[in-house]
Amino acid sequence: MSDNSNVRPAWDDSLMMKAARCEPVSRTPVWLMRQAGRYMSEYREVRSQTTFLDLCKSPALCAEVMCTAVERLGVDAAIIFSDILPILQPMGLDLEYAQGEGPIIHNPIRTAEDLSRITELQDVSPMDYVFETVRLTRESIADDIPVIGFAGAPFTLASYAIEGGSSRSYMHAKSLMFGQPDAWRELMERLARSVARYLIAQIDAGAQLVQLFDSWIGCLGWDDYKQYALPYVQSIVQEINAARPNAPVIYFGTGNPALLPLFKQSGAQVVGIDWRIRLDDAWNTVGHDVAVQGNLDPVLLLSTPEMIRERVAEVLSQAAGRPGHIFNLGHGVLKETPVENAIALVEAVKELSAK
Amino acid sequence: MSDNSNVRPAWDDSLMMKAARCEPVSRTPVWLMRQAGRYMSEYREVRSQTTFLDLCKSPALCAEVMCTAVERLGVDAAIIFSDILPILQPMGLDLEYAQGEGPIIHNPIRTAEDLSRITELQDVSPMDYVFETVRLTRESIADDIPVIGFAGAPFTLASYAIEGGSSRSYMHAKSLMFGQPDAWRELMERLARSVARYLIAQIDAGAQLVQLFDSWIGCLGWDDYKQYALPYVQSIVQEINAARPNAPVIYFGTGNPALLPLFKQSGAQVVGIDWRIRLDDAWNTVGHDVAVQGNLDPVLLLSTPEMIRERVAEVLSQAAGRPGHIFNLGHGVLKETPVENAIALVEAVKELSAK
Repeated sequence: MSDNSNVRPAWDDSLMMKAARCEPVSRTPVWLMRQAGRYMSEYREVRSQTTFLDLCKSPALCAEVMCTAVERLGVDAAIIFSDILPILQPMGLDLEYAQGEGPIIHNPIRTAEDLSRITELQDVSPMDYVFETVRLTRESIADDIPVIGFAGAPFTLASYAIEGGSSRSYMHAKSLMFGQPDAWRELMERLARSVARYLIAQIDAGAQLVQLFDSWIGCLGWDDYKQYALPYVQSIVQEINAARPNAPVIYFGTGNPALLPLFKQSGAQVVGIDWRIRLDDAWNTVGHDVAVQGNLDPVLLLSTPEMIRERVAEVLSQAAGRPGHIFNLGHGVLKETPVENAIALVEAVKELSAK
Repeated sequence: MSDNSNVRPAWDDSLMMKAARCEPVSRTPVWLMRQAGRYMSEYREVRSQTTFLDLCKSPALCAEVMCTAVERLGVDAAIIFSDILPILQPMGLDLEYAQGEGPIIHNPIRTAEDLSRITELQDVSPMDYVFETVRLTRESIADDIPVIGFAGAPFTLASYAIEGGSSRSYMHAKSLMFGQPDAWRELMERLARSVARYLIAQIDAGAQLVQLFDSWIGCLGWDDYKQYALPYVQSIVQEINAARPNAPVIYFGTGNPALLPLFKQSGAQVVGIDWRIRLDDAWNTVGHDVAVQGNLDPVLLLSTPEMIRERVAEVLSQAAGRPGHIFNLGHGVLKETPVENAIALVEAVKELSAK
């Protein structure tokens, strides 16, 4: 990093930042959601010495596993190693990552009355370990690699807080949403304001971009998304854009391509696209004035380098060299992925997109 | 039933059959996927005396639970009580419905070699209990209520056969699909030919329509659906249309509205729409020359009769009185649904759509 504030930092001129701003690039930038994870032996090594939650709360280890992944894969961005759910702890929820079962919330919200247990995060210091992770990751990584901060989007966080874990039907979340709309609005507003502060603090700690993960949003139809979820995404994006205009926001909502025209209305500079829709159809839908990130099916990383290369070429041909494409999977790397295949993906993107 | 073959049977002139043929109707027909199920005490009573698989193999009980549901709800169609997976048993798979865990296949297919264990159903007599269920349901129900036969679509059956149960990523199914395309094609062809014979036999046993459930298809993107799944749906629909031209086919694929233009290419007379997309957008996408079935979010049945009525009105206003709308949920009735709410839905559709 430079002490001279007149010098533009290297990351600001990186492929990733340029693509996020829809500027032309010499080749397509690439990174992978969950690029540091169980598929990588270096990660499993670190993880075997601690619980998942303790790992999230150990900034040095978080920075280490991400830097290792960035170096091994040769990707163009470092998303901080963390999770979307720990923010729920200081808000009043009893979170546990049970062995082999995924996250569990022991005191889920089910009624309007339960809302009294949910505290808006006015002061984000309980999340200091995440900001320290951002700082250490920023310090440890090459200057031309942007660091991405992230958070869960309000609907996805609310679903976890209400269901108490993952769900097939999102019955409890939707029942509160349909049945107690005032309580729903209050919960979503508390989450949205907390998340906005949390992401701004990640930017202040050194993140160049932030991504909002709406992992469970695909269970909503158009009208319900528009009424019950979109306004809160919009308010987060607006707050970040107003407070930190140089940090692009990536909004990634998976599971329902029919919502894409509304995802554009989020105001995010980059829209994440899952593999359920062709990248060209998705980009035509959201418009070429926003950048897109995606969208190879993560299961393809279990195939062969040849097949991966073929499918990378197909996605790149759909992007057609337009400014504003960030290559990624359509969802996170699966734990069964051979590392060599993830490397083959990154190499294929670099080689096939070079101009 | 009439002995006089010149007399048109009452069901042929029913609301359901007319809507399936895109003919004008006096009001919108309505039925619910999984209308006989755990949410209904009469069903639980029958079910408590037997296992799920034994129930499926007891035609008299199957007919009884469906007739009870049709009478209690006042719906316009009776889908046979059965399941999509038992057809896999005579094809060589060891199927079990484990208590509280959903279906499990103990000898899933994972490689091209495993395919030798999968026998195409040349002779459908192992499924005689289903045809008997069709006959008894047809006999037991009013003449103006059509009986719907059904089967799983090839991709969904293949996914179960390969994964061995439900899955989040469909990693094994897609790995065979991507990695061993010849084995995949062979498996899908065997399934498609078996399903076509099975559905034609259901029609011959007395079903007026048949529905193909592609419950897991939403995990595929456009190109993969088009290459690896659609051709087999098309071949089933073609065989049925050629052999039994008076029996409309309903194709229901849930989980990815971006596939709707391809669902139209299935050739099915009716396309089932889940709740992830507005009914009007979906119908505009598939075109008004096919009928549509759907599409209320099943979780809405956990709300109140007032809210259900409001949402029914909204779906009907999107259908805009065009010929060819069959009212249904966007997926099956949830077991937590109060029966009164399901009844309220049916009544609202009848009342609000009357011309």
